[in-house]
Amino acid sequence: MANEERPKTLAEAEAPAPLVDRKEVSDWSFYRAIIAEFMATLLFLYISLTTLVGTIRVGAGSVGLIETAWAFGGMIFILVYCIAGISGGHINPAVTFGLFVAKKVTITRALAYIVAQCLGAMCGAAIARGVQGSEEFHTYGQGAVNGVKPGHSIGQALAAELMGTFVLLFTVLSATDPTRMARDSHVPVLAPLPIGFAVFVVHLATIPITGTGINPARSLGAAVANPLHGNWAQHWIFWVGPLAGAAAAAVYHTYVLKAGSIKFRSLYE
Amino acid sequence: MANEERPKTLAEAEAPAPLVDRKEVSDWSFYRAIIAEFMATLLFLYISLTTLVGTIRVGAGSVGLIETAWAFGGMIFILVYCIAGISGGHINPAVTFGLFVAKKVTITRALAYIVAQCLGAMCGAAIARGVQGSEEFHTYGQGAVNGVKPGHSIGQALAAELMGTFVLLFTVLSATDPTRMARDSHVPVLAPLPIGFAVFVVHLATIPITGTGINPARSLGAAVANPLHGNWAQHWIFWVGPLAGAAAAAVYHTYVLKAGSIKFRSLYE
Amino acid sequence: MANEERPKTLAEAEAPAPLVDRKEVSDWSFYRAIIAEFMATLLFLYISLTTLVGTIRVGAGSVGLIETAWAFGGMIFILVYCIAGISGGHINPAVTFGLFVAKKVTITRALAYIVAQCLGAMCGAAIARGVQGSEEFHTYGQGAVNGVKPGHSIGQALAAELMGTFVLLFTVLSATDPTRMARDSHVPVLAPLPIGFAVFVVHLATIPITGTGINPARSLGAAVANPLHGNWAQHWIFWVGPLAGAAAAAVYHTYVLKAGSIKFRSLYE
Amino acid sequence: MANEERPKTLAEAEAPAPLVDRKEVSDWSFYRAIIAEFMATLLFLYISLTTLVGTIRVGAGSVGLIETAWAFGGMIFILVYCIAGISGGHINPAVTFGLFVAKKVTITRALAYIVAQCLGAMCGAAIARGVQGSEEFHTYGQGAVNGVKPGHSIGQALAAELMGTFVLLFTVLSATDPTRMARDSHVPVLAPLPIGFAVFVVHLATIPITGTGINPARSLGAAVANPLHGNWAQHWIFWVGPLAGAAAAAVYHTYVLKAGSIKFRSLYE
Repeated sequence: MANEERPKTLAEAEAPAPLVDRKEVSDWSFYRAIIAEFMATLLFLYISLTTLVGTIRVGAGSVGLIETAWAFGGMIFILVYCIAGISGGHINPAVTFGLFVAKKVTITRALAYIVAQCLGAMCGAAIARGVQGSEEFHTYGQGAVNGVKPGHSIGQALAAELMGTFVLLFTVLSATDPTRMARDSHVPVLAPLPIGFAVFVVHLATIPITGTGINPARSLGAAVANPLHGNWAQHWIFWVGPLAGAAAAAVYHTYVLKAGSIKFRSLYE
Repeated sequence: MANEERPKTLAEAEAPAPLVDRKEVSDWSFYRAIIAEFMATLLFLYISLTTLVGTIRVGAGSVGLIETAWAFGGMIFILVYCIAGISGGHINPAVTFGLFVAKKVTITRALAYIVAQCLGAMCGAAIARGVQGSEEFHTYGQGAVNGVKPGHSIGQALAAELMGTFVLLFTVLSATDPTRMARDSHVPVLAPLPIGFAVFVVHLATIPITGTGINPARSLGAAVANPLHGNWAQHWIFWVGPLAGAAAAAVYHTYVLKAGSIKFRSLYE
Repeated sequence: MANEERPKTLAEAEAPAPLVDRKEVSDWSFYRAIIAEFMATLLFLYISLTTLVGTIRVGAGSVGLIETAWAFGGMIFILVYCIAGISGGHINPAVTFGLFVAKKVTITRALAYIVAQCLGAMCGAAIARGVQGSEEFHTYGQGAVNGVKPGHSIGQALAAELMGTFVLLFTVLSATDPTRMARDSHVPVLAPLPIGFAVFVVHLATIPITGTGINPARSLGAAVANPLHGNWAQHWIFWVGPLAGAAAAAVYHTYVLKAGSIKFRSLYE
Repeated sequence: MANEERPKTLAEAEAPAPLVDRKEVSDWSFYRAIIAEFMATLLFLYISLTTLVGTIRVGAGSVGLIETAWAFGGMIFILVYCIAGISGGHINPAVTFGLFVAKKVTITRALAYIVAQCLGAMCGAAIARGVQGSEEFHTYGQGAVNGVKPGHSIGQALAAELMGTFVLLFTVLSATDPTRMARDSHVPVLAPLPIGFAVFVVHLATIPITGTGINPARSLGAAVANPLHGNWAQHWIFWVGPLAGAAAAAVYHTYVLKAGSIKFRSLYE
């Protein structure tokens, strides 16, 4: 959400975003938000892929699970912290899609963010490749490209991507829920930290299965930067799984956790 | 606690919960809380067991101590953060039992939560098994099932479970104590973080002894999903130890840390 | 500080504690604080030594540096968080001594805390030994007892203990400084977290040199529980180093960071 | 910023610092800030280099990537937390330079801080060398000195230093932006934590490329303390890269993220 027109009341904050908002696109803050998403996704891919490839390179084949998981989760923590007030801090098409399904952003903003995230991811992955050297990036970077890891099926990979993105979006929607911000003092203060931790723990769980996408822009950026390993035949998994997981979390949040608190109460009181 | 009827005063917040509260079960927020506990325990088991099995699988037998401890502790941090305002964020029958002993929840709510947590844990463990494949889950998943590790006795395992759950409940009760929320500005803001860290450090200490239960739903879910390794003869340890530890922490909190502040002061002032 | 008589004004909060305070010892909160220090140091030693010995046991001789450092730092974070409002959350004779030098606690309270911490540490270490088994605790527990590690001199060990405790007390005094609490919104909210991190990073640096004391109660507890390895000839290092470091930090804080802000200003304004 | 004359309004907080401020140098708080920067950089180098050398020593050549990254990031977190209210908590000439470019500090203060940081870094590195022993510090300390790691080019090292410092300064400028402090409740409370995490994740990414400078004082201190390994021919990389990255982040923050919010709005409203 653009914070130029910050909501003053809870009702205003709760009001669903319209599908299209003409006023939105005439404000500089809209374009600034798109630039912020582009830059943040660029920095995210640069740091996370450089860590992933560098750790494998230094460890000569070892997994570097904890380092990689921290690089992804830690970057999301600091980037959400830094640009939450400017663009909402999505840095991930699945987050943008989930917030669109939950009627938190317009379709114009959603599409503009997703394009900016994908471009930023490709640029960040290209810089990560640059500082490693193309050949080394290919040699050590097989882990950087998302794909079905040996011993796992496509269905397992898809399920893991769906579950992981569900955990992320469940956290994002809870942390940014204005009802809860009003009533739980601890929610807004810490918001970027649990979001970063969600990315961290999902990576711990999912790296051995798919390398962990849960972010289509990240999967796309790594695949483009790494054509030798880019497993394009499996690339659809890293859009379908995350977007389905995001939509499921948006539905769970809207129709179970949120709506009930309003509808049922009016029945009983 | 359902937050629909959020206490307005410290006295109200301090008032012990009744054993049974008829009004409670007629409110949607009660059922929403049960659904939230079910889902959170499902996600908790899915992420933590997937990490545990995946880390062993990738490392070919290595322990993955730090990754596993972070997966458990990190998930508790984000889940408590996300559902604290909806169900209180127990996600653990021992926590529910400890809060019942400390008169924070009714017996109706306690039982409903425990059933929801056990069902959620079984579903989460089943999904974790699904994304690994049944055979691989059994091969690499011996660590997932709680039991007395080689070189330790039943008494040591029981003591470790009791001590670990004491640490967890001591933290939960301190972090959610309304007296302290009123007087220490730092308490409510960070509450989910020390609770997550308590789970993290207890795992660091207890994984080599029992694999770390301190949560009967987690022990049950992993045992059901893993019948080949499910050491049912030892399963009682992971109910008796945690529930005893939780009760001990509730007694320590109520009769040493809390009651004294009220009773003794009236004697001296 | 007992929080029953919580200071109302900054001047009151800034007022140095008297050497002896007769009223203090007639209040239940004084004895409750001593019990809280005893229990917290017990839990601290139990979790940290169990992690230390268990990690070495599982890893068959490996160092477990990161796990051990997190166990010590993580426990201090949650314990300070839990008992800060009850006893101040010292859990360490060097912290108590530093706060005494900085005139934050009376000598009565300082001595009572130090005795409680040492007793708690011995009990916690005994339980840690119990859950491992005495023989295994001795076999794998050489790292638990503080001492000068091979390749280091007594002078180096003493310097490392002094520096490490300086970092800890510098953090404690900054985090609990009432002047700064009044002016920096971020200080009181996060206070237990940087204190826990200080313990964490000092362990990362100092484990290879002395095993890391920076807490005489921890050194005493581990030595008593581990007589075969207890290097009593070097035990003085783990009292002299930490107490000197704590005093140095108290002097730096009082006469450079704090006093100046008062004295110099009155000269210029 | 000296906090003696804390800004009362947002406009005052937003006002750019003058190039020179005569009043500033007549206040004790200016000299106290310089002492605080000296001491903090000393402690930073002591803990981080001791961890780096000790980890390699204990692990007999292993990398210790995660331990080292935590030591650097964790120390920056606690030091920024402790001295943010006294000196602003720079502890890094690149941070000071970036804040100077963004007109947050005068040139007098910037130069004084940079000298204090370089002196502090040399003292801290000397103490780290002292507790290890000179010979051991040289044997195990090759990783402590920043330089182009095998398999990387000077251009790659320079780019990695620039990108890493960009991430750090982007975080620092976002976290301390007074506009955002006013509108986002979560910004000031957590400020030191994302700054520490930025240092942590940049180390994860950059240790395999340059050992990670992103702080000219750290690079200088380690090089001076380690003359055998001090790669003076490459030392310029660790001033040019970080200062360029800091300036780029200051420009991005000022002319994209900040200025736009003011200029464009006046066009449209």
